[in-house]
Amino acid sequence: MHGESFSDVGIARVDISRMERTGVPEVVFGAGKTLVQTETVLRELFRRDGFALATRVPAEDLAVLAARMPDAVVDAAARAVRLGRLPATERRVAVLCAGTSDLPVADEAAFTLEAFGYTPIRRSDVGVAGIHRLFADFAEVATAEVVIVAAGMEGALPSVVAGLVRAPVIAVPTSVGYGVSAGGYAALLAMLAACAPGIAVVNIDNGFGAAALAHKMLAIGAAR
Amino acid sequence: MHGESFSDVGIARVDISRMERTGVPEVVFGAGKTLVQTETVLRELFRRDGFALATRVPAEDLAVLAARMPDAVVDAAARAVRLGRLPATERRVAVLCAGTSDLPVADEAAFTLEAFGYTPIRRSDVGVAGIHRLFADFAEVATAEVVIVAAGMEGALPSVVAGLVRAPVIAVPTSVGYGVSAGGYAALLAMLAACAPGIAVVNIDNGFGAAALAHKMLAIGAAR
Amino acid sequence: MHGESFSDVGIARVDISRMERTGVPEVVFGAGKTLVQTETVLRELFRRDGFALATRVPAEDLAVLAARMPDAVVDAAARAVRLGRLPATERRVAVLCAGTSDLPVADEAAFTLEAFGYTPIRRSDVGVAGIHRLFADFAEVATAEVVIVAAGMEGALPSVVAGLVRAPVIAVPTSVGYGVSAGGYAALLAMLAACAPGIAVVNIDNGFGAAALAHKMLAIGAAR
Amino acid sequence: MHGESFSDVGIARVDISRMERTGVPEVVFGAGKTLVQTETVLRELFRRDGFALATRVPAEDLAVLAARMPDAVVDAAARAVRLGRLPATERRVAVLCAGTSDLPVADEAAFTLEAFGYTPIRRSDVGVAGIHRLFADFAEVATAEVVIVAAGMEGALPSVVAGLVRAPVIAVPTSVGYGVSAGGYAALLAMLAACAPGIAVVNIDNGFGAAALAHKMLAIGAAR
Amino acid sequence: MHGESFSDVGIARVDISRMERTGVPEVVFGAGKTLVQTETVLRELFRRDGFALATRVPAEDLAVLAARMPDAVVDAAARAVRLGRLPATERRVAVLCAGTSDLPVADEAAFTLEAFGYTPIRRSDVGVAGIHRLFADFAEVATAEVVIVAAGMEGALPSVVAGLVRAPVIAVPTSVGYGVSAGGYAALLAMLAACAPGIAVVNIDNGFGAAALAHKMLAIGAAR
Amino acid sequence: MHGESFSDVGIARVDISRMERTGVPEVVFGAGKTLVQTETVLRELFRRDGFALATRVPAEDLAVLAARMPDAVVDAAARAVRLGRLPATERRVAVLCAGTSDLPVADEAAFTLEAFGYTPIRRSDVGVAGIHRLFADFAEVATAEVVIVAAGMEGALPSVVAGLVRAPVIAVPTSVGYGVSAGGYAALLAMLAACAPGIAVVNIDNGFGAAALAHKMLAIGAAR
Amino acid sequence: MHGESFSDVGIARVDISRMERTGVPEVVFGAGKTLVQTETVLRELFRRDGFALATRVPAEDLAVLAARMPDAVVDAAARAVRLGRLPATERRVAVLCAGTSDLPVADEAAFTLEAFGYTPIRRSDVGVAGIHRLFADFAEVATAEVVIVAAGMEGALPSVVAGLVRAPVIAVPTSVGYGVSAGGYAALLAMLAACAPGIAVVNIDNGFGAAALAHKMLAIGAAR
Amino acid sequence: MHGESFSDVGIARVDISRMERTGVPEVVFGAGKTLVQTETVLRELFRRDGFALATRVPAEDLAVLAARMPDAVVDAAARAVRLGRLPATERRVAVLCAGTSDLPVADEAAFTLEAFGYTPIRRSDVGVAGIHRLFADFAEVATAEVVIVAAGMEGALPSVVAGLVRAPVIAVPTSVGYGVSAGGYAALLAMLAACAPGIAVVNIDNGFGAAALAHKMLAIGAAR
Repeated sequence: MHGESFSDVGIARVDISRMERTGVPEVVFGAGKTLVQTETVLRELFRRDGFALATRVPAEDLAVLAARMPDAVVDAAARAVRLGRLPATERRVAVLCAGTSDLPVADEAAFTLEAFGYTPIRRSDVGVAGIHRLFADFAEVATAEVVIVAAGMEGALPSVVAGLVRAPVIAVPTSVGYGVSAGGYAALLAMLAACAPGIAVVNIDNGFGAAALAHKMLAIGAAR
Repeated sequence: MHGESFSDVGIARVDISRMERTGVPEVVFGAGKTLVQTETVLRELFRRDGFALATRVPAEDLAVLAARMPDAVVDAAARAVRLGRLPATERRVAVLCAGTSDLPVADEAAFTLEAFGYTPIRRSDVGVAGIHRLFADFAEVATAEVVIVAAGMEGALPSVVAGLVRAPVIAVPTSVGYGVSAGGYAALLAMLAACAPGIAVVNIDNGFGAAALAHKMLAIGAAR
Repeated sequence: MHGESFSDVGIARVDISRMERTGVPEVVFGAGKTLVQTETVLRELFRRDGFALATRVPAEDLAVLAARMPDAVVDAAARAVRLGRLPATERRVAVLCAGTSDLPVADEAAFTLEAFGYTPIRRSDVGVAGIHRLFADFAEVATAEVVIVAAGMEGALPSVVAGLVRAPVIAVPTSVGYGVSAGGYAALLAMLAACAPGIAVVNIDNGFGAAALAHKMLAIGAAR
Repeated sequence: MHGESFSDVGIARVDISRMERTGVPEVVFGAGKTLVQTETVLRELFRRDGFALATRVPAEDLAVLAARMPDAVVDAAARAVRLGRLPATERRVAVLCAGTSDLPVADEAAFTLEAFGYTPIRRSDVGVAGIHRLFADFAEVATAEVVIVAAGMEGALPSVVAGLVRAPVIAVPTSVGYGVSAGGYAALLAMLAACAPGIAVVNIDNGFGAAALAHKMLAIGAAR
Repeated sequence: MHGESFSDVGIARVDISRMERTGVPEVVFGAGKTLVQTETVLRELFRRDGFALATRVPAEDLAVLAARMPDAVVDAAARAVRLGRLPATERRVAVLCAGTSDLPVADEAAFTLEAFGYTPIRRSDVGVAGIHRLFADFAEVATAEVVIVAAGMEGALPSVVAGLVRAPVIAVPTSVGYGVSAGGYAALLAMLAACAPGIAVVNIDNGFGAAALAHKMLAIGAAR
Repeated sequence: MHGESFSDVGIARVDISRMERTGVPEVVFGAGKTLVQTETVLRELFRRDGFALATRVPAEDLAVLAARMPDAVVDAAARAVRLGRLPATERRVAVLCAGTSDLPVADEAAFTLEAFGYTPIRRSDVGVAGIHRLFADFAEVATAEVVIVAAGMEGALPSVVAGLVRAPVIAVPTSVGYGVSAGGYAALLAMLAACAPGIAVVNIDNGFGAAALAHKMLAIGAAR
Repeated sequence: MHGESFSDVGIARVDISRMERTGVPEVVFGAGKTLVQTETVLRELFRRDGFALATRVPAEDLAVLAARMPDAVVDAAARAVRLGRLPATERRVAVLCAGTSDLPVADEAAFTLEAFGYTPIRRSDVGVAGIHRLFADFAEVATAEVVIVAAGMEGALPSVVAGLVRAPVIAVPTSVGYGVSAGGYAALLAMLAACAPGIAVVNIDNGFGAAALAHKMLAIGAAR
Repeated sequence: MHGESFSDVGIARVDISRMERTGVPEVVFGAGKTLVQTETVLRELFRRDGFALATRVPAEDLAVLAARMPDAVVDAAARAVRLGRLPATERRVAVLCAGTSDLPVADEAAFTLEAFGYTPIRRSDVGVAGIHRLFADFAEVATAEVVIVAAGMEGALPSVVAGLVRAPVIAVPTSVGYGVSAGGYAALLAMLAACAPGIAVVNIDNGFGAAALAHKMLAIGAAR
């Protein structure tokens, strides 16, 4: 297997061959980490690879990181920060979300894609209760090679989109809502049960995972 | 309360004032009843009121009832049988279903509506994965005063329809499908979580209940 | 479809044809929105249509909105605010709730109905454990064309009411209670399982949805 | 502890001091036992104590047992059989059920009570959707010292009854129904969540347990 | 039905015939009520009946009530307060709990029993992992006419106790614990599934309900 | 939208523009269809497009179809049948499964891929309990552009594989097993929770869906 | 890793180094396998290692295997068959079960232990509802080095036993019972929530897994 | 039974024969206890036995205890404190965890083992997404007589480890993560469903229980 290796940096056993093995770089999951831990690993990854990304960073830590690392790109809505960027690419990914409440998850996906070199096509507030808003300027969306759709509540948007495009659809359930919507299970089940074939589902609120999966999908063509 | 009364007919305490009190006649729930019980109550209700309806009748019993009661209208797909019919009405109800697997539930709703005097507008196989099929001849559906939508799997169709019509939408989750769709909970949760306002949800597979609710809704206007 | 359109106002893609298409105006869902966002959209909707309603507004924001918009009607119990009101109507809707803990949800339904032009008949604290309280002055409730019933805990009240009235019953489970009542699932399941036909169920705590559904039901008669 | 003992009869370690310790005799749970096992233990218990009861006996085994043991009392609806009977008592227990589908569970409770010496007051088909049927001849029910209520679907009947009587109410959820009613969980949760104090809940379909609990409750007075 | 009546006191429709109908007085459920509401109803009930009890009162409100109503008996552990007491009785009820974490629930049951006139027998920390502690001084417990057992985690104590005593056992699952114990469902299911007959289960954490049920059980003997 | 159209063939509203719109042809879902329905639609699709595929066909129907349609390719393990095949392709897809019990699901995926023109790389019985079996001849798997992994029980194999390859992994939970494995939920949750990024999850037992998603992924490169 | 290897025998990739790596031999899981598959693998394993064990074999297959392989030891209750036996050992393992319904699971554990060379101490019908039966002849159980306890319903027996012995307790929930007991989840949760430390839980009905775990535990001492 | 006894120290009925009976000393569960209660019991246990351990102690209490009891060993990450230590032993236990988020649970296990006299082998950050990190220095882990594995998310690590070692594996699901991982149920189910035999599962986040179970396992050899 690949000449694997890792680096034991005290607070973590960093998987430095992950990029080589899987095509997705090691990314810092900020939830549950201290500010010091997140900053340390970010700086180390950037020093070695010229690229570092952290998601799920607490709001208060983001502000401090922005102040301490002037070169960092910080996105408060996406709760994420990056140093550097993977090489820019013309490949086309769309990120749709059903309602404004789904925006943080869509933003995490879009920020990750930007860090990976993409310029995502964005559409927000195109939920199925007013489906003409989706159709209104769908032409550009239809040019995307992969479409990420974040939706909470009944999670119906991925089904509708998957019935309209040739691109694979990555469905991200979001945990917004109340009553049976709370926690995102209603949306998750709906997406898994979707009648339209060709939908890839990821964990609830996992905007990063959707972006990483899109990146892997787009690497298929690149590898040929 | 109304001059209530009932008739204790041995095998059941029949609620003979229900029609007067609630506007919906007493209907025989055939599941778990013997053929003799179902036939006895049907004949008794028809003798007294000139109308009798039984739902959830086992297939083998339906065949026997059809043979024994030549005046009965039997619908094998809807698993239902009726004697007589409530007065015909011009009021307009639509019954839509997402896939062919949802047909038995939609059929139960439609058969009940027919027994109650309606001539329902039907659309089948108009699921969201090919949503143009819904739009194709939607004009007649849009004339309905109440729209019943039966859907299993991700249960997304009621949300889409409710965003298109002025009529209230009655959503019936169906238990068709496998994996997370099995049992109908994915569809049920999706319908309750629907982002479009004005959706009334009933129990899984409850086609009769949807029709009874539509009947009560349409009686609103009638009562003025 | 209808001459649909929408207005992209930066923070949202407002569905300005919703009222025309569905009979229910676009309403602001305040949860998860900033004070600025809520106020902006309220003012814009009111400017254009002479009517604006926001529900699920955080308590602290309600106070600020009341101060800034002297013409607004604010209801702290219902967590809602409105500017203007749809034309007044004589149509009759009742809003019942089982216990005092269900009041916030019943209040949201009633406030929405008032905003839509109704003067709802109210009954509180008429739960089934002392069912004579319900019967005591039921005559006025029985005149309602639609009855909304909010109940938590065992959620039994809609079943009892639906067995007494000709009007359709809209059941709203509430999330009050502890142990198995917490979250509202016991009440939700009970309402869906109700043996009385003609009950429309909406999401847990969804007082607004119940009112919107009632409004759509009452529009049936209006459309003839 | 009581001078406990037991008898190891090969296929089971029979708890012969249970009656002395707990006031409830050892009863054979027929499900999962072979006909030979059930018959053997029934005969042994009857030989020693002059009383034996088996519940949950498969229908085909009941027929054989009836043929082989002419003195046995067999109840096909209750799926139970007994040899002998505990001393007759005038103490009053009522067994109510909401619908005819709940009858097998109510029958198991009633048959057990009869085996224990009681003559239960029975009411069937008194569900909350036609609650006047309950009130119609409630006077005799109100004389019961303990009231057992079996109900499936929304399980609302125990709440209503508990608000009307001084006697403790034992609620037995039943597994009848479809959709969210299937399995009895909707009724179970509703009964546990009941707003009326003084309701004792037992396992789904546990008619025997309800009767045993009633028997223990009535022994309170006897022990003074 | 009894000459029912109630009093509409603005904030609630007080069920003043409940004591007469059901044998359990109206009790204030403090959760979700304001301090003013709780105090008002307590004073009104005490003024009329010479007895008032409130449970689930927030800690900060308890302190204020203790200061304002010098005659009140306040129990911080039980989160309850009472004015007056029902007539003292020699009837015997035991309240056991498995661990110290179950104490608040056991305390609510015991406080309610004291308010109702009983002097409960208490045993704490007698969980099944050291079952000799239960047997050590069981003789007094065995004299109880009703035994309330509060237990969280695996909820096994009621089964063991029900196998040892003639008295009915009221099982109260508690929500203490972590992992699968959190919320009390593991204990609830275990109690409902208990192999020992004669166990009455109430809602999770419902110490008051257990006491009310015991009170109703003991009234059986009293009513003869 | 595309010049959409459909053909109403009596028993279904066939979505004849699906291939054009989404890149995946209309496929017959055999479960719940009669033999006549399945055969009719298969023949019609093949007549029009030179290609037809049905999955989830009952075993007894497969035998009849094989007899009646000599040109059909029938796979009893995959419960599927096809007429014709999409153009052969050199693109590389691997189908792995953890245990022999997962084979029917893996077979459905592989049969679908073959129908779509692929020659899938297969590995069976490479579950994580003997992970060296996976590593043993992994080189060929590593050449795949997409890897489908079917696994029941703990569903761990996709996580391990996704950490080893650059290709996106499509995880299919299977419903094999007993206890907590039954139904496939343990595997489904594990796959959604997987720590390795780049995993696409589909519904339980949805081998067809995995293949359709792989086909859409591979079309990304083709479309450039 | 160990010099791993395996043998691809067509129908499976047999893990022939498992015994060496993990101390537990490869065992045939009979559920879902054909009679031919089970017999083939059994004969092959026995030919190579002089030992073969199959569990979860359907009853009808067991009878055939018994007839075809005269040297096989077949246990219908345990649904298992073995050829040969691992070397006999004096190490002491106890297998307890709460009720007769748990016997098949306890039998699977005991049969596996016998195949692995042990002579298990057995106790059946020692559930907590008559806990004196457990204490009656506990001395021999207390000599066991590992105690396996199978229990359904409330699953309380492991907690009681773990509070009495120094040996680790392996708890096996069983799926017997009805209502909340059905499926074994009530017992599973209770065992995981057990207040007594030192309890190892395995999957529902997993008698084999309990025996394998006991075997691994006892190998600890052997390895020193 | 053993000459059992206990000491009623007011706030608890301390089980002072637990060590003798079960081999695991009484340990203070700090959650829900006041600082005074924890300190009192710690001091009393240490006075009598020369050893005392408390787990789940709130962070702020740990700091105070450290200040007041200079001889105490406090571990903030493990949320635990001890006075004294059981006799040191050379027996070998490994504690692995999948990610850094699982560290607090692994730390609780390790701290408990240290208190019991062990020097655990530790490995962190060896999750299956980069499984080469596990293999890298596995030789020392393979010498352990018992291996504890803490893992959240998909909980796959125990399966992989159990397929590699002869030692029994104790699997501890952790509640880290979001979406379907939140609460630890995905990991719990995966561990119970694991295909590798010989895995002992404990409650979610129960690091202490894992250590106590390991201690009991290792006492098997010691007792011979």
